[in-house]
Amino acid sequence: MLRFQIIARDPASHAREGTLTLPHGVVRTPAFMPIGTRAAVKGILPDQVRESGAEIILANAYHLAQRPGAEVVAEFGGLHRFMGWDSPILTDSGGYQVFSLAGLTRITEEGVTFRSHLDGRCLYLDPCSAIAIQERLGADIIMALDQCPPGDADYALASQAVERTVRWAGQCRRAHQRADQALMAIVQGGVYHDLRASCAGRLVDMDFAGYAVGGLSVGETHEQMVEVLGHLVPALPAERPRYLMGVGMPRDILAAVRAGIDMFDCVLPTRNGRNACAFTATGTLKLRNEQFRLQQGPLEEGCACPACRKFSRAYLRHLFVVREMLGPILVSTHNLWFYQRFMARLRDLIPGGDWATILAEFPIAALGRGEARPA
Amino acid sequence: MLRFQIIARDPASHAREGTLTLPHGVVRTPAFMPIGTRAAVKGILPDQVRESGAEIILANAYHLAQRPGAEVVAEFGGLHRFMGWDSPILTDSGGYQVFSLAGLTRITEEGVTFRSHLDGRCLYLDPCSAIAIQERLGADIIMALDQCPPGDADYALASQAVERTVRWAGQCRRAHQRADQALMAIVQGGVYHDLRASCAGRLVDMDFAGYAVGGLSVGETHEQMVEVLGHLVPALPAERPRYLMGVGMPRDILAAVRAGIDMFDCVLPTRNGRNACAFTATGTLKLRNEQFRLQQGPLEEGCACPACRKFSRAYLRHLFVVREMLGPILVSTHNLWFYQRFMARLRDLIPGGDWATILAEFPIAALGRGEARPA
Repeated sequence: MLRFQIIARDPASHAREGTLTLPHGVVRTPAFMPIGTRAAVKGILPDQVRESGAEIILANAYHLAQRPGAEVVAEFGGLHRFMGWDSPILTDSGGYQVFSLAGLTRITEEGVTFRSHLDGRCLYLDPCSAIAIQERLGADIIMALDQCPPGDADYALASQAVERTVRWAGQCRRAHQRADQALMAIVQGGVYHDLRASCAGRLVDMDFAGYAVGGLSVGETHEQMVEVLGHLVPALPAERPRYLMGVGMPRDILAAVRAGIDMFDCVLPTRNGRNACAFTATGTLKLRNEQFRLQQGPLEEGCACPACRKFSRAYLRHLFVVREMLGPILVSTHNLWFYQRFMARLRDLIPGGDWATILAEFPIAALGRGEARPA
Repeated sequence: MLRFQIIARDPASHAREGTLTLPHGVVRTPAFMPIGTRAAVKGILPDQVRESGAEIILANAYHLAQRPGAEVVAEFGGLHRFMGWDSPILTDSGGYQVFSLAGLTRITEEGVTFRSHLDGRCLYLDPCSAIAIQERLGADIIMALDQCPPGDADYALASQAVERTVRWAGQCRRAHQRADQALMAIVQGGVYHDLRASCAGRLVDMDFAGYAVGGLSVGETHEQMVEVLGHLVPALPAERPRYLMGVGMPRDILAAVRAGIDMFDCVLPTRNGRNACAFTATGTLKLRNEQFRLQQGPLEEGCACPACRKFSRAYLRHLFVVREMLGPILVSTHNLWFYQRFMARLRDLIPGGDWATILAEFPIAALGRGEARPA
């Protein structure tokens, strides 16, 4: 159901290059997964997502269980056929929505009740139903239900979330039946190293196909994230893929790859693309700015994406100024290409541990979120 | 600048099949022009528009003069390069906006002052500036500035609009300099046959590259439209292309082709597509309807468009229900393909005057706007 091979390691860090072989194809790692929450990468057709270099995408079981309903997707033979994407898919369980929709959820030991943000109806999610939904959706990789506390959770709260996450992971493990799906568990524990270590150790004892790091990218600093990973990753088995959920900016990805992470997902390329913000190797461009009004060049010199091949910065700016959908479509497309290009260069350079070259080619990977600046 | 060749005629109606040779390519007629008002067909990349079979698109000089400004487009060598569409383009002058933005315009003998619907700034358009703007935009076909009265205009108002339209057409004719652009004039006159005849006669005396029929599709009935065309078209020279502006539903197009019209434009395929309404040969589908929740088939059997090749009705419905941009994109794309397929069959069947086949293949062409029904 999942075969993970490490091809090369950086002798000077924990970075590794590998391949993840899944029922719907091979994924080169470190990999970045574009987000298709509701069975669609926003504004981008599956063929266009594939052309960007993406080999796996993420969808969300919580959202799909609400609409169109897991049973509808199952009638179509699963998510791949339903959405016209025949490469690997990973579904998140809905654990993150326990955090992001906190005002609408009620958590007990048994599970989570969501009051729908759409129509007020209740959706009940427990470890068994989270797995049952994901088995109906049919992704290549499915995730255990976890409890993700807020980024500023104190020790007691973080500890409580770890206990529940571990118990729920065990229940998911027992509920999981489809042999053609790989189940990954999620390590919680906030910024507390002992909690992270304890959570990781107990999950590893249960033997999952891979291990995700949850509860980061929820408000903590870059430095905190790096510190948590530095302590946590060595507690995870080297031969299993490691997935850092919801991350992130190029700087975060670079640091996490060096800490030994293999998989990433993030809304930034598409969300920023919709908001006229383009990633380039040297920084981000805010395309609504007047400065782009007459710029004839592409978003990024040398980029082979459909936006850069055919359109000027001035035209892309015009599209946003007049609110034409092609603006969000084209800049999202560029950003997906940018992220895949960045990951491909990371994979290229891992065997030699050539981080100086990465920083020379992608100065953006030295910039934090607040520092992102026009090229 | 414009060569129009008639290839075949229907012996039993005024329909003709032809080719329009323009600086940026050849357009087969009768032709349907998708709308790219602001230098973008909403949600559809130029390559995708071309793949639908479209050979010419329409953009709007009034809107482009406001944003990004004709001078910006000119800096890019014109609209073709600015928007990445290298096939023919027709620009409308802004005359229609005199009608559609009536509350914001002030019309005098000299020209029209528009208070911008965006920021309150004034844009002044007179025959000379309408031509100057369109020369900067650089479309293959440009339109004279006309005055389009409301659909319910009385005789006096319609007559006044004709007089002004004729005078402005003459001024446009004299202002027009670029030899690589074809200038068409617009016939007004409401539903009054003598006004239409008088307007047509005087414009024909000035010798334009083609003649458009304006002031239809502004509220009159299908039968009124057909009657106006029946009287008017014979007054236009047979060897010049005839363009019915803003039309329309397949039934309107079929009737107009039989009356001798060669060119059409309409927002329906893209506007309806954005609103979850798909055209099929047998009627329209309102995709938000519950009935499509589990339908595995494509929008239309046998359609080769990207939406029908890869996606089910159920998936497309899902996209609209969860407000994913791919819904508008895919259904707009299908509708563009539908319109081009319809035009291609009209061209095929004109030589034999085989209207029974058209109605058998496209029952939608017997349905009026209000009657459009799910297939």
